[in-house]
Amino acid sequence: MSGWIAIAGLGPGDEALTTPEVEAALAQATDVVGYIPYVARVMPRPGLTLHSSDNRVEVDRAIHALEMAAAGRKVVVVSSGDPGIFAMAAAVFEALETDPDKWRDLDIRVLPGITAMLAASARAGAPLGHDFCVINLSDNLKPWALIERRLRLAAEADFAIAIYNPRSKARPEGFTNALALLRDICQDDRPVLFARAVTTPQECLRITPLSDARSDMADMRTLVIIGSSKTRLIERPGGSILYTPRWAS
Amino acid sequence: MSGWIAIAGLGPGDEALTTPEVEAALAQATDVVGYIPYVARVMPRPGLTLHSSDNRVEVDRAIHALEMAAAGRKVVVVSSGDPGIFAMAAAVFEALETDPDKWRDLDIRVLPGITAMLAASARAGAPLGHDFCVINLSDNLKPWALIERRLRLAAEADFAIAIYNPRSKARPEGFTNALALLRDICQDDRPVLFARAVTTPQECLRITPLSDARSDMADMRTLVIIGSSKTRLIERPGGSILYTPRWAS
Repeated sequence: MSGWIAIAGLGPGDEALTTPEVEAALAQATDVVGYIPYVARVMPRPGLTLHSSDNRVEVDRAIHALEMAAAGRKVVVVSSGDPGIFAMAAAVFEALETDPDKWRDLDIRVLPGITAMLAASARAGAPLGHDFCVINLSDNLKPWALIERRLRLAAEADFAIAIYNPRSKARPEGFTNALALLRDICQDDRPVLFARAVTTPQECLRITPLSDARSDMADMRTLVIIGSSKTRLIERPGGSILYTPRWAS
Repeated sequence: MSGWIAIAGLGPGDEALTTPEVEAALAQATDVVGYIPYVARVMPRPGLTLHSSDNRVEVDRAIHALEMAAAGRKVVVVSSGDPGIFAMAAAVFEALETDPDKWRDLDIRVLPGITAMLAASARAGAPLGHDFCVINLSDNLKPWALIERRLRLAAEADFAIAIYNPRSKARPEGFTNALALLRDICQDDRPVLFARAVTTPQECLRITPLSDARSDMADMRTLVIIGSSKTRLIERPGGSILYTPRWAS
């Protein structure tokens, strides 16, 4: 059996941020599987079949990919960013657990990518230069009360906080509530970075104090970073630099 | 003035994980600055000067890089992994703040890289597939009491925890204390990943229950990931898969 499955991260958008390892896997693949806009980033070529599917069908998509690989296909499952950060790798392993014996000997690899928070952080400066945490604000797969509890403990620990999926049409009020909760714990001038579609032509960065942050500053393509108490802004003519020093007291 | 400074991440070790963006910056550079083992990863060529320095002189190194760039040189400051995660980007901005007017118009960019936790996570499966936090265990630049407080709050929040710099010769007892603290809060079977020198010829992965984890399982080249209460192990002939599902209750 020569089939395999590689769960690969395409990076945040710019091709110059896709690793050679991922490019090599795509060059060998017979099939690419993923969410519509991510599969659209893969260059079509003879011998490569592209399988796009919609959001929220991650486990079905993963089972499809596992079955093709078991049948001898060379399958790349693509995610934006890194496949291990709120993306397809966990979904493929959830699928694997529905019938572990069936795919027991299958060659499965995960190929890392530049996740959105690294790209956003680099563009803004280095807001994640000290201890931080990473929270998916979607409550599709976990209760909202757990998200609030984690935000509260993260703010108490004085972590910088990277927020994935801050807002979607289905849950406009979650991020509003999250900002209100953080305003109760953190000082008003805590800087908040809204980094939209980083490294794409639609890139837009905005830094605002927590007191002025509003949920409509984010959409589905925005990564948000809430600074820690030590995060600083250096004002410069070419654009401010947001960074968190390496030290803390 | 045509000088610039790019603070670049080389990724975890394997050249196939260095982004084309970083390779392009290195190809244009006149000078490369960094910690000895990271500069050693850059291919020498005519016209490129390599400036290696030892650990713990990050701000001096950063000032040297800023001064060369201000004098018209094209300078790449290299870090392993990602420059924004416990690496040189924050140090360069700390240096910039020692005299912001002097370097006011300097062209400064940060070029992201695959940080150790993404590479380690990919090799093991997807242990960071749900909410997590990231803590540097070195107490060179922050009090140990703050590290303990963050570990405790992170465990209470049921984050998976990625630990950078778990252990060095200068502070052998810190990681021992951290493991003891986590054992007080978390159940005994919580999986712990020790990922050493990932993607290099010295790569070594080990997964052990928290009850069996010992500090001498880590050294300066090890990234540690403590699973959350939901992190699971799938036993397979080719090597176990460690992952955290996307859902939580």
